[in-house]
Amino acid sequence: MMQKPDLGYLFEPRSIAIVGASENPGKVGYKVLSNIITDGYKGKVYPVNPKGGEILGVPCYKRLEDIPGEVDVASIVIPANIVYDAVMSCAAKGVKFLEIITSGFSEIGNVEEERKIVGLARQNGMRILGPNIFGMYSAGASLNATFGPKNIRAGNIAIITQSGALGVAMMGKTAVENMGLSTIISVGNKTDIDEADLLEYLVKRDDTKIIMMYIEGVREGERFIEVLNRTTRIKPIVVIKSGRSTRGAAAAASHTGSLAGSDDIFDAVMKQCRVLRAETVEDALAWCKFLAESPMPKGENTLIVTNGGGIGVMATDACEKFGVKLYDDMPALKAAFSPVMPYFGSTKNPIDLTGQASAANYNTAFGAALKMESVHAVISLYCETAVLDAGEFVPILEGRYKQYHVAGKPLVFCLFGGRSAEEVVKALRDRGIPVFTDPYEAVSCMGALFTYSRNRALEPEVPEKVELDVGRINELIAKARADGRRHLFPAEGRVLMEVAGLPIPKSTIGRDLGECVKAAEDIGYPVVMKVVSRDILHKSDVGGVVLDLENQKEVIEAYEAILYNCRTRKPNAVIEGMEIAEMVRPGVELIVGARRDPSFGPVVMAGLGGIYVEVMKDVSFRALPLGKRELTSMLKNTRSYPLLLGARGEERKDIESVLSAILKVGEIISSCPGISDVEVNPLRVYPDGIKAVDVRVMLSKGEGDAHE
Amino acid sequence: MMQKPDLGYLFEPRSIAIVGASENPGKVGYKVLSNIITDGYKGKVYPVNPKGGEILGVPCYKRLEDIPGEVDVASIVIPANIVYDAVMSCAAKGVKFLEIITSGFSEIGNVEEERKIVGLARQNGMRILGPNIFGMYSAGASLNATFGPKNIRAGNIAIITQSGALGVAMMGKTAVENMGLSTIISVGNKTDIDEADLLEYLVKRDDTKIIMMYIEGVREGERFIEVLNRTTRIKPIVVIKSGRSTRGAAAAASHTGSLAGSDDIFDAVMKQCRVLRAETVEDALAWCKFLAESPMPKGENTLIVTNGGGIGVMATDACEKFGVKLYDDMPALKAAFSPVMPYFGSTKNPIDLTGQASAANYNTAFGAALKMESVHAVISLYCETAVLDAGEFVPILEGRYKQYHVAGKPLVFCLFGGRSAEEVVKALRDRGIPVFTDPYEAVSCMGALFTYSRNRALEPEVPEKVELDVGRINELIAKARADGRRHLFPAEGRVLMEVAGLPIPKSTIGRDLGECVKAAEDIGYPVVMKVVSRDILHKSDVGGVVLDLENQKEVIEAYEAILYNCRTRKPNAVIEGMEIAEMVRPGVELIVGARRDPSFGPVVMAGLGGIYVEVMKDVSFRALPLGKRELTSMLKNTRSYPLLLGARGEERKDIESVLSAILKVGEIISSCPGISDVEVNPLRVYPDGIKAVDVRVMLSKGEGDAHE
Repeated sequence: MMQKPDLGYLFEPRSIAIVGASENPGKVGYKVLSNIITDGYKGKVYPVNPKGGEILGVPCYKRLEDIPGEVDVASIVIPANIVYDAVMSCAAKGVKFLEIITSGFSEIGNVEEERKIVGLARQNGMRILGPNIFGMYSAGASLNATFGPKNIRAGNIAIITQSGALGVAMMGKTAVENMGLSTIISVGNKTDIDEADLLEYLVKRDDTKIIMMYIEGVREGERFIEVLNRTTRIKPIVVIKSGRSTRGAAAAASHTGSLAGSDDIFDAVMKQCRVLRAETVEDALAWCKFLAESPMPKGENTLIVTNGGGIGVMATDACEKFGVKLYDDMPALKAAFSPVMPYFGSTKNPIDLTGQASAANYNTAFGAALKMESVHAVISLYCETAVLDAGEFVPILEGRYKQYHVAGKPLVFCLFGGRSAEEVVKALRDRGIPVFTDPYEAVSCMGALFTYSRNRALEPEVPEKVELDVGRINELIAKARADGRRHLFPAEGRVLMEVAGLPIPKSTIGRDLGECVKAAEDIGYPVVMKVVSRDILHKSDVGGVVLDLENQKEVIEAYEAILYNCRTRKPNAVIEGMEIAEMVRPGVELIVGARRDPSFGPVVMAGLGGIYVEVMKDVSFRALPLGKRELTSMLKNTRSYPLLLGARGEERKDIESVLSAILKVGEIISSCPGISDVEVNPLRVYPDGIKAVDVRVMLSKGEGDAHE
Repeated sequence: MMQKPDLGYLFEPRSIAIVGASENPGKVGYKVLSNIITDGYKGKVYPVNPKGGEILGVPCYKRLEDIPGEVDVASIVIPANIVYDAVMSCAAKGVKFLEIITSGFSEIGNVEEERKIVGLARQNGMRILGPNIFGMYSAGASLNATFGPKNIRAGNIAIITQSGALGVAMMGKTAVENMGLSTIISVGNKTDIDEADLLEYLVKRDDTKIIMMYIEGVREGERFIEVLNRTTRIKPIVVIKSGRSTRGAAAAASHTGSLAGSDDIFDAVMKQCRVLRAETVEDALAWCKFLAESPMPKGENTLIVTNGGGIGVMATDACEKFGVKLYDDMPALKAAFSPVMPYFGSTKNPIDLTGQASAANYNTAFGAALKMESVHAVISLYCETAVLDAGEFVPILEGRYKQYHVAGKPLVFCLFGGRSAEEVVKALRDRGIPVFTDPYEAVSCMGALFTYSRNRALEPEVPEKVELDVGRINELIAKARADGRRHLFPAEGRVLMEVAGLPIPKSTIGRDLGECVKAAEDIGYPVVMKVVSRDILHKSDVGGVVLDLENQKEVIEAYEAILYNCRTRKPNAVIEGMEIAEMVRPGVELIVGARRDPSFGPVVMAGLGGIYVEVMKDVSFRALPLGKRELTSMLKNTRSYPLLLGARGEERKDIESVLSAILKVGEIISSCPGISDVEVNPLRVYPDGIKAVDVRVMLSKGEGDAHE
């Protein structure tokens, strides 16, 4: 296989061929060529069409091979069944990148043809964007090689989208919202180039300040995680993934052929990678616009300046929702604001200038907040009134916005009202100033900025390492496979726990009374006694179990009682002995598990266990590898975490052992491809340790397994 | 006190006086008069100003008494310190309604002056709107008696707002959004007329189809609940209450002087009263506009019609979030849609017409969905493409919207994209057709409609009744009060439970061994034994408690052991005897409580109890009185409800007894003003009954209590 060409050739090609260029304005082959020409591409343009001649004034080549110079990118817009032949021509010509707009491949089940094409491309050192895309726009080359709208505005936001339809609509949307793009690129079936490839390129580009992604499904999740982690240290990423709901996930799968992973896991992994996830496209675009322009805050003290108490309270609610911290030093606020406050106003945060506030009052308040070193960000709200002249408002807001920018203080405006408020909004947006009509939207942007700023400040972590005797585990797996099983027996599960170093309740089998007494003494009272017999399935039903034996005398009595019960009720059963087990103390019950996620590989889970698992669904996920901080934050993300801290005056539980248990079950999945799922439930947690009471282990689907 | 005048005089007055009318355009007294004249009020207008003369061409009276005819409404816009005198003049003149725009009363602590004014008004049969308001607009009289914007559009949405600033801004906002109002009315300090009064009037008005309220605090909550319940059977109500967050609630309190109740309780009460609660003003306005125009759906089967898979998945996610049920009869959908589907399209719901869809494809799909009797509502999504001519789209959407309206099928559109999508949105909005730019917003409107439609269909419930021996409870209260206590002792709490009919663990005090043995036999094994001594506070610490006594022999041993322990470790303690108590079986642990809420009066609470109460916060609230269905839904609203149904194959628990326990603790609060809080935690629930293990009872603040 040849070396892969640099993505710079895709984003700033010196020449582009349009294979399937057309003179029919209804055709994609016309639209793409026309966009390339209209939007001012600076390189060479080579339309290719067997008819030859000229299209839109540009000479058209009958065959790709006829093009005189080098071709960096070939945009392919011909029917699916002749794409392979075109790719052969591209290989012969030495094309570097194929932008296969054509659809009709894996997304409709035509997997084989797509595989053939990508194989051919790889053999010839070519890379593929697509297939099933609308193309790509790159500001660096003024290249609009899409069939979307023309006149894309250049700027510093990059968009990567898996949905073509949404992508085209976003091109239009960003244009009317005055948002400048460094690129918008459609990845479609991601047969070769995927989000990770593009992120690696875009993170290095100075013209890109923020990256937005619309994702339907993830492939090669482990690499994706690694690239996301590197990128978000440098630039913010905003992601939208539809398919949050069970039903939505099903719709996404039928739509793109990607296997949508569990949304809980996706969500957790994005947080772990410091990616900002938006629910709607409107939120995502608003965040991008705001984060692309706003300075990073130097601290978290945020001030609300308003002329209406009601809207101030709403913004306060929104601050709690979006994690924006309000500044509360009342004497400092009073000192700074009482000289500039109108009658009835409030110098508490929210600073209420009252409905009588003039543009000058706002201006003075902005000035006071700008001067306060202890104030790091300002959210300004305005409810339309008759007293304020909107015309005066625009230059004040514009001027203050610039000053705040220079001072490194984020500032966001929200204007609510009728015609005059709308005019101010429009005037400010035209000047590229972040302004919203809904306090929640304004605050959500500020919240996204703080979340990113907080996350970026975290030091990179070294993943925790765990030693594991993989050989012994593989023996367990081999034995189960030999039995034709896809799971481990409980006793094998206990061995697995021992190998991984998770404490389990002590247990021994005594074959006679003497051994039982000795076992009980060794384990320590209280103990449980259970009959061991292949012939007795339901031990409790025949009186084969006695709990809470506190001394030797009770062990002897229990032994006799069980023997008597079994002989009476199951006279033919062969009794092999008695299991003597530690009576497990009550403790906080957690669930700790790990599995191989189809999108992201090994992931771990922890949360409230026991009978509450299914009901409370209070669990948290992370992808491996994990550092200590992320591991701790995973536990802290569960609502039940305070139980471990010792709720209601109880002792703090052994959280360190829980963290270590999570890493150990995670390591089992990472190191043993034969195991797909490990679930410890309950993991009892005490002030002085943990106990893995029950464990379920599923094996991976092997070569010899029946199709399920 | 005289009979109150009908609110019809406020909304359609035959005459209005403006006390404080001014010729200075900067004054509120000018603005109100000018709005009344400009917006075409049909009755008589009487400006009042000591200077006399003429204002805006209308003769001005020096004194209210000089007005020749009757005055239905006096709008008062003079300084706070002379309002009382003006109200005296109004009384002399026989004015019916006072619209006191002036601020500076209870909202800034000037409570006494406000009380004097309202007292005077009541004595003279006058009612007060305000003070501290922007006024009111009433379409029925073309009366814009506000200092807000002019040219209010008449329509069928009524807005009641407690915030003046937001109200004025909403007047502007509704105008630019083409929303017609039947009224917008500012209640301010609600010294007399409150939301309940206005709802009682508006529910009867044919010109009002939906009512939106912005609330900061509730007074007379019990009446409010009763009126909400009656109103929402006939018309939808959308409410916004800020102060959701702890901090926001504090801000609201400082702003209006209303005591913001716990948001959980407010939220629960709104649901109970079938009120739709919006988080943002934008959502509230969108819902109002949609619900005011849309027909009520005949069923819940909803279809999504889209040209983009990605946006279809987003809408699917939104449907789950907002409770919209998607229709899933695949054969029926295939039969209806395959004849009209483009290549690659999907006849599964979401129906995907693909990016190649033309306006004609949409039209045909709408036709097919209209014909299907099993489809009750349609959500249509459009991602801007190059192939669809937006110009063609408008008449199709408009025509289909009307047809759907006639057929009683709700239809909502979402158009996402650039300039051409925006033009379609604007054209449709101008025609009064519900269209959005974000799928979540479109679906949230449909969700609000379904929620209202579902709720309205519920039959009114007869409240459950509970008998209670209030006399015995009052004796307990009196005894505690006599001791200077604000709470009951545990033993008194147990008596309270017995009086209310809640089963408690059996318990007796044995003064000697014989009595202890007899008590254990009477209660039934296993039992618990605890030393009874005023001198021993921490019984466990001295070995004064033994659990799980299973027979007479163990009772005797425990008796001796406790005596020995106490005599050894607390030699001077006077031992009065032993408490022999039932050993309470494990069971599902709930918390059940009731309290007197400052806003809504008696409210009940139920949810997950034991150590999980504080950590999981899984509780649900309702206001009393309660019918059986609401009571059940209250329990069902908790996440832990499946535990009662018997999670993991366990037996179903005695839910009926839990419901009855909730009513009983509720009745204690309703019938005994001396008790402010009752909290049973844990209430153990078994398949065959319940047991109130622990109960805490707080008394109301009485006359003689110290100020807290």
